[in-house]
Amino acid sequence: MSRLESFRNRHPGRDYEIVHTCPEFTALCPKTGQPDFATIRIRYVPDERCVELKSLKLYLQGYRDQGIFYEDVTNVILDDLVAALQPRRISVEGDFRTRGGISSVVRAEYQAPRARRRKR
Amino acid sequence: MSRLESFRNRHPGRDYEIVHTCPEFTALCPKTGQPDFATIRIRYVPDERCVELKSLKLYLQGYRDQGIFYEDVTNVILDDLVAALQPRRISVEGDFRTRGGISSVVRAEYQAPRARRRKR
Amino acid sequence: MSRLESFRNRHPGRDYEIVHTCPEFTALCPKTGQPDFATIRIRYVPDERCVELKSLKLYLQGYRDQGIFYEDVTNVILDDLVAALQPRRISVEGDFRTRGGISSVVRAEYQAPRARRRKR
Amino acid sequence: MSRLESFRNRHPGRDYEIVHTCPEFTALCPKTGQPDFATIRIRYVPDERCVELKSLKLYLQGYRDQGIFYEDVTNVILDDLVAALQPRRISVEGDFRTRGGISSVVRAEYQAPRARRRKR
Amino acid sequence: MSRLESFRNRHPGRDYEIVHTCPEFTALCPKTGQPDFATIRIRYVPDERCVELKSLKLYLQGYRDQGIFYEDVTNVILDDLVAALQPRRISVEGDFRTRGGISSVVRAEYQAPRARRRKR
Amino acid sequence: MSRLESFRNRHPGRDYEIVHTCPEFTALCPKTGQPDFATIRIRYVPDERCVELKSLKLYLQGYRDQGIFYEDVTNVILDDLVAALQPRRISVEGDFRTRGGISSVVRAEYQAPRARRRKR
Amino acid sequence: MSRLESFRNRHPGRDYEIVHTCPEFTALCPKTGQPDFATIRIRYVPDERCVELKSLKLYLQGYRDQGIFYEDVTNVILDDLVAALQPRRISVEGDFRTRGGISSVVRAEYQAPRARRRKR
Amino acid sequence: MSRLESFRNRHPGRDYEIVHTCPEFTALCPKTGQPDFATIRIRYVPDERCVELKSLKLYLQGYRDQGIFYEDVTNVILDDLVAALQPRRISVEGDFRTRGGISSVVRAEYQAPRARRRKR
Amino acid sequence: MSRLESFRNRHPGRDYEIVHTCPEFTALCPKTGQPDFATIRIRYVPDERCVELKSLKLYLQGYRDQGIFYEDVTNVILDDLVAALQPRRISVEGDFRTRGGISSVVRAEYQAPRARRRKR
Amino acid sequence: MSRLESFRNRHPGRDYEIVHTCPEFTALCPKTGQPDFATIRIRYVPDERCVELKSLKLYLQGYRDQGIFYEDVTNVILDDLVAALQPRRISVEGDFRTRGGISSVVRAEYQAPRARRRKR
Repeated sequence: MSRLESFRNRHPGRDYEIVHTCPEFTALCPKTGQPDFATIRIRYVPDERCVELKSLKLYLQGYRDQGIFYEDVTNVILDDLVAALQPRRISVEGDFRTRGGISSVVRAEYQAPRARRRKR
Repeated sequence: MSRLESFRNRHPGRDYEIVHTCPEFTALCPKTGQPDFATIRIRYVPDERCVELKSLKLYLQGYRDQGIFYEDVTNVILDDLVAALQPRRISVEGDFRTRGGISSVVRAEYQAPRARRRKR
Repeated sequence: MSRLESFRNRHPGRDYEIVHTCPEFTALCPKTGQPDFATIRIRYVPDERCVELKSLKLYLQGYRDQGIFYEDVTNVILDDLVAALQPRRISVEGDFRTRGGISSVVRAEYQAPRARRRKR
Repeated sequence: MSRLESFRNRHPGRDYEIVHTCPEFTALCPKTGQPDFATIRIRYVPDERCVELKSLKLYLQGYRDQGIFYEDVTNVILDDLVAALQPRRISVEGDFRTRGGISSVVRAEYQAPRARRRKR
Repeated sequence: MSRLESFRNRHPGRDYEIVHTCPEFTALCPKTGQPDFATIRIRYVPDERCVELKSLKLYLQGYRDQGIFYEDVTNVILDDLVAALQPRRISVEGDFRTRGGISSVVRAEYQAPRARRRKR
Repeated sequence: MSRLESFRNRHPGRDYEIVHTCPEFTALCPKTGQPDFATIRIRYVPDERCVELKSLKLYLQGYRDQGIFYEDVTNVILDDLVAALQPRRISVEGDFRTRGGISSVVRAEYQAPRARRRKR
Repeated sequence: MSRLESFRNRHPGRDYEIVHTCPEFTALCPKTGQPDFATIRIRYVPDERCVELKSLKLYLQGYRDQGIFYEDVTNVILDDLVAALQPRRISVEGDFRTRGGISSVVRAEYQAPRARRRKR
Repeated sequence: MSRLESFRNRHPGRDYEIVHTCPEFTALCPKTGQPDFATIRIRYVPDERCVELKSLKLYLQGYRDQGIFYEDVTNVILDDLVAALQPRRISVEGDFRTRGGISSVVRAEYQAPRARRRKR
Repeated sequence: MSRLESFRNRHPGRDYEIVHTCPEFTALCPKTGQPDFATIRIRYVPDERCVELKSLKLYLQGYRDQGIFYEDVTNVILDDLVAALQPRRISVEGDFRTRGGISSVVRAEYQAPRARRRKR
Repeated sequence: MSRLESFRNRHPGRDYEIVHTCPEFTALCPKTGQPDFATIRIRYVPDERCVELKSLKLYLQGYRDQGIFYEDVTNVILDDLVAALQPRRISVEGDFRTRGGISSVVRAEYQAPRARRRKR
């Protein structure tokens, strides 16, 4: 899996919001091996680090050949972004295309412990 | 970089809102040198000064040949407007066109310390 | 500048709202002399006086040959309406067409001191 | 002017809403004698009486040859409906077609004193 | 009935089209005396004369107190415009609001004899 | 069944079109006795007679308690209008609301023999 | 399979069009046994017979437990309607919901030999 | 009146189309002196010359203080563009905002004599 | 590459149309190895064979790990469908998501030689 | 200026269409030096060569610092694509954002001499 890279947030004195939307996510169903397709939406308030966009693209492309459940992939992306960025808060939403006549959305979020969250 | 010019707010006794929308913003990616495109939205309540529109246009055009990250440019525009205008409050939103299959929005805002914010 | 005329509000015992929308406003840029175009939206709760519509039309047409900033004209229209009508509350919004690739909206409002505002 | 007639509300134990929309309202401008055109929207919660629809139509047609200001006619319709129905609450909105490049909306409402308003 | 006035077409050497749309037409039903409401659309290619807009407004307002059928009024407007303008070609459309649960549209047109129609 | 009445076309020297739209048609299903609902659209070029609108309303209301198939009612309305008006040409469309999960549209038209159709 | 019933077309002297739309069609995939969902659209010009609507509903419901391909069911419905009605012309369209990430539409039509098609 | 300037068409060997749309046109009514507002649409195929955009803007602004009829201004703009550019073909459309409850559109076009129109 | 399978067209005596739309197509860029995303639209008139839907899905999924140009993949899908089905006529459209700020559509079609195309 | 590169069309035996849409085009005004913004739409039928997408992106980016008129740039892009690809036919459309209150569209096209255009 390609590494998420980050760069230094040059404006840590301010809470501000970043939204990345990727309508080209694809992974494999762990039971059938069939491809799944989704739009991934990431929304976060950075602390010391911002995610570098090209590494995010490669990271998300890294799921192309992995078998993983909708619920799992949404949470793993969240975990990996938390680990890489230690953001003040972050949410990840996976909006999956119809399979078997059913479309699905999974949403997860994280909030940093109080100390880090407070404004400098 | 072209200077942001301002003119005297003739109605400082009143909190009122000004919104400028520029769908023609372009800068360069600091990693690849490739052009980025965005819509910049500025919304503020002036105190003593308003931004002069032509200087805002030239200021935003000044990024045309600069390499700068999405997160940075949005915050720098905010910082420069705060420095030039000392507004009561202001927000800047950069809405960036798709790169590598990912579209991005960055939103930052500033609120003046209480003294200046209060109504005269 | 043509005078704003008013007529007696025959229903002062009730707070009610009046909205006038004028998509045909034009003035001149004070720096370049070039024409600016805007939609002016006026929304108010009358006290003793209502604005007479024909005088409002002529008043707004009076800006046709004046050089005046967006922020100023929006506030001056508000001030003139406050002076002419002494309304309970009023807002004026100027929605200006694109100049130099930037479109602008200015919104200002006024609320009468408590005594006059209260319902009779 | 034709009389507003009413019939007994058979469901006074319940607050429910009635909306009548008349896009065919016309009156005369009291200054120029020129015809004005509007859509009148009436929205009310009945108490003991509901307005009879044919009498409402004839009542509104009664303004066809009257000279009356936008603000006045909207409030008079409200007053007449309040007198005829004693509703729990009611609003009247007059949405007037463009005159002199300006379109206008007038909105007025009435709420019954607490005793009558409360649910039985 | 107010007279249709015309002014000299300064560009008779060219076939060009003029469209006037009046959404504020009202007349009376000849059977019930009830008001009817319509949008009148006029589209013509002038020959020597163009219709003067204010006289057209007053002419259309002249039907306000007349009892006349939909089919008749549409054709009479056409006939009166043909008589006043002798246009190269013209159509009139009356789009009448719902009466008795039925909405109606009437369309009629006129084409000048060949000699006048041909381009100079 | 209420009679279709007509009045004399005062403009027989001209081919012009009349459209009546009735979204409030209801009849009964001849098999189940259940009510059916439809929009009836009538479009014709009159010859000597036009249909009188109130009689058309009463005529269409006359189907309220009749059991009749979609296909039949559309054609019978067409036949009755042809008999009453002898128009130059006419079409009738019945657009029936969903029954048993199926919505239906029936369209029929009539054109007069050449002699009557030609322009005078 | 429930029989398609018909009733006598009472207006065979005229070519007219009938459209039935059924958004509630379901059958089974012949390979997987999974349910498929579609909208079926039928459009025809009757000759001597019209399809009876209730029998059409029951006929379409008869596919609920059948395994049948999209292409086949669309054509079989067409064949059965041709056999039952001998219409002058007819088309059937099946608009199938997404399966395996692919949505499908099948359209087939039939035209009677010239003798029957010609107008009586 | 500001002069229409042109620059040399560098691609005269090819018929190609240019469309300019100006929603900010204003002139004065020659009868009342009141301002009129319109959108002007110009569409042409150049021959040897193209219209220079800034001169077009200034030319259109030149009508701001002129009293001129809708029909006349549309044709005069066409005539002036024909004189300045000698285009292969051109159309001008003036779409005027509501006056006296009537909105108006005027459309005129010009086609060069055959010799100039033919492709080189 | 997974094989396109077909099943016997049970209705070869009739020209009818089948449309398959797959918004979940992905392949790799042959120059950069980066994933591309597209919607593939297939429209054909079958002769003796129809494409089996599950094999079509697997066939399209087979491009997931292939490097291939937009133009090539659209034409190769067309060629493979022609080879597998020998249809009377067929078109394939690839609608590709934005890369480098440019979105692309490729459309190709095939028509069988006259003998096979003619109706049986 | 970056070179337009091409690759061999592997399907020259077939006329098929390719559409590229670039909403991120920017150049400079040759008179004022101010930036212009446009959407460029390219539509062509290839002969022996297809345009390589990355080189097209770089080619279009090459106008970023050039002063050039709308009419010229649209035709020059067309000429350069014709020179690089020798396509069977091609059109280029430049849709330019508002300048001085005027928005503009320029459309040009090229068709190969008959020999090359005919189908192989």
